[in-house]
Amino acid sequence: MANPQSSDIPPRVHRLKAQMVAHSLDAVICMKPESTFYLSGFNPIIYSEPIFVILTPHLDPILLVHVLRGKHAEASTWTPNLFLYGTWSNITTLAPTWPAALTTLLGDGNSKRIGVEQEFLPVTQFHQLVQALPTAQLADCTALIHQCRELKDADEIASARIAAQLADRGMEAAVAALQLQGATERDVVLASMRAMHEDWAAHYPDVEICDFGSLEGGYTSGLTAWVLSGPRQSFGCDNPVQRVPQAGETVSVFVWTVANGMHAELERTVCIGSVAASEKEALHATLDIRGEIALRLTPGTAVGELYETAKKGYDRRGYGEYLPGRIGHSIGLGPHELFSIDARSDRTLLPGMIVSLEPHIHIDGVASTQYSDTILITEDGHECLTRFPARVIQVAQAIYT
Amino acid sequence: MANPQSSDIPPRVHRLKAQMVAHSLDAVICMKPESTFYLSGFNPIIYSEPIFVILTPHLDPILLVHVLRGKHAEASTWTPNLFLYGTWSNITTLAPTWPAALTTLLGDGNSKRIGVEQEFLPVTQFHQLVQALPTAQLADCTALIHQCRELKDADEIASARIAAQLADRGMEAAVAALQLQGATERDVVLASMRAMHEDWAAHYPDVEICDFGSLEGGYTSGLTAWVLSGPRQSFGCDNPVQRVPQAGETVSVFVWTVANGMHAELERTVCIGSVAASEKEALHATLDIRGEIALRLTPGTAVGELYETAKKGYDRRGYGEYLPGRIGHSIGLGPHELFSIDARSDRTLLPGMIVSLEPHIHIDGVASTQYSDTILITEDGHECLTRFPARVIQVAQAIYT
Repeated sequence: MANPQSSDIPPRVHRLKAQMVAHSLDAVICMKPESTFYLSGFNPIIYSEPIFVILTPHLDPILLVHVLRGKHAEASTWTPNLFLYGTWSNITTLAPTWPAALTTLLGDGNSKRIGVEQEFLPVTQFHQLVQALPTAQLADCTALIHQCRELKDADEIASARIAAQLADRGMEAAVAALQLQGATERDVVLASMRAMHEDWAAHYPDVEICDFGSLEGGYTSGLTAWVLSGPRQSFGCDNPVQRVPQAGETVSVFVWTVANGMHAELERTVCIGSVAASEKEALHATLDIRGEIALRLTPGTAVGELYETAKKGYDRRGYGEYLPGRIGHSIGLGPHELFSIDARSDRTLLPGMIVSLEPHIHIDGVASTQYSDTILITEDGHECLTRFPARVIQVAQAIYT
Repeated sequence: MANPQSSDIPPRVHRLKAQMVAHSLDAVICMKPESTFYLSGFNPIIYSEPIFVILTPHLDPILLVHVLRGKHAEASTWTPNLFLYGTWSNITTLAPTWPAALTTLLGDGNSKRIGVEQEFLPVTQFHQLVQALPTAQLADCTALIHQCRELKDADEIASARIAAQLADRGMEAAVAALQLQGATERDVVLASMRAMHEDWAAHYPDVEICDFGSLEGGYTSGLTAWVLSGPRQSFGCDNPVQRVPQAGETVSVFVWTVANGMHAELERTVCIGSVAASEKEALHATLDIRGEIALRLTPGTAVGELYETAKKGYDRRGYGEYLPGRIGHSIGLGPHELFSIDARSDRTLLPGMIVSLEPHIHIDGVASTQYSDTILITEDGHECLTRFPARVIQVAQAIYT
């Protein structure tokens, strides 16, 4: 197998290897889609035949995939160590099943201490691992991998920028569509998705927009928008329906994107004509609270302090009762990943983290505000990767009345 | 809680309850997205806060969701028993965390025998369940739920029909786009996705097209197409790229759809102008082998016999070496669910099952054939839900040369 100096191997692999040594792990075996992509660059799109990455301190990552995914893996991965399992056509593989292939690669476990992701690994597959590697000591390595993922590599930040640019296009198209007479939630969503897909096709020749699937056969285009109007705002998320937003209502527009596995989110509230003074007040309060929190978005700030800042902002403006349970989250390979910005967080902001910032105010029948951006923590502060202006957005009332 | 005679409760719930009694299970606790939807009708779209369904033999299903999803759940579910956990704004919930909410609902487990889905349930959450319900005996109920899901209810079949109709539109649009000069894989995929989304928006007012996400925050539009041209056919699946299919090549077109959680797949091979005789021969062989298998697609046929029939067809035509590991699979809430049509299967076809039929022939550099349909097993045979003609499809060579 290739030596550990391969130039294509990204820094995250070396970071994780160092952590493995510090935690006395002889190997890590991942089967979570986000993790196998993270450590190999390969997204098989369909996971119904599981894929694995085995990481040891002294070798490049070992990618083990079902034979059906062999050619696709070979074309996608940056690790030189690719192995196949399964039975298909006339192709030679390590073994007919993945547990047997793991035994071929790792013996009976050689009494090694091996990390597995217990927050993802299903109980059945855990038992299959125990049987395949009977002398191995399996330990939970979820926290190690999460810690590694918190800091984004340069290639990941570049992809997040693309995801954010696509989201900006999606929001522009959604707001434009909301100005068309009689446009339904669905019309607005389709206009937004179309704009993002066309922008992707035209300007990002090498970028993959597929999200990660579930183990039951997931696949997806990750360029998505939701539009929730009027009373439907309280759902928080839903497929669009054939409802036409009404004058005097606000509409929540959510745009979610993926570029090479990295997610961005961008959310805005759009007023359909003039809205009630109480709702407008909540919109301005939301923007002001965001501004107060943004001043603290800088390396060294405890994540809990961000929540505390938000809480003070809600309290001071009389919205204390409506404080949400979190006001943002880490974002990267998962659209909601790793940590929330909430009262219980023990994380501290570091350069290379990416978070959403979204202190919303939802008061049934009174106000519903929804603003979120994707924000990179930099060496000396932060950079908003999504650029669509964060302000009170009102589309002309005339066309709705 | 509401009594078990509620008229909205679909037959699958009663079927599963009968199986629970037969297997001495006092309750089942599900957290797999497909299963919670199956037993409640609610797809939260985002699963980063888990949702649960608790089923007991004598009550309607109990749906437990994070408070953030409360309004959405209330509007979507058909079960009258909805409970909330978590801390958010000023809303009252059962308990701040899901394990505490389960304890509130089920005590310490009351020494009951409770089924959990070990093929999905992560090790960490399994341990949290053990702590929340310390006197419960947890048993794997994956097989019970799979068996129940194999037979589709009338509402599921109706949704699968809609998914199949959307897939037909997607395939029509893809084949039409392949006739446009200079069309790239991406152009074809975007045309297909656009046609499906527009058809959905215009004709299926109440249908949800969201797929099921992963626990790290999944969400998606489930109307998807892939196009793999020339040498990229061997990947089996991939996001489209900016490659223009060339005269003399074949192109694999995959269309995947979801309607109210039910999936359909439709796959065709399109010849760009005239292709080599050896590839044309493989295309005809594929269609003929499908025809031979289709004669056996009737209740009572062992799934293994279908594979055996395929094997004979490959052997007889000289393609024995290229026999794929499976030639179809069950399809429903998962795009690849429950069982494969392969040599090892112990299933028997029953009315109400839905399967894909896809004996492909892939020979590197020689031929790549890709035909799949979504097929319902009926009382006296089968019905192809996808209707796009299964034949050798050739688009005009003139525009490509």
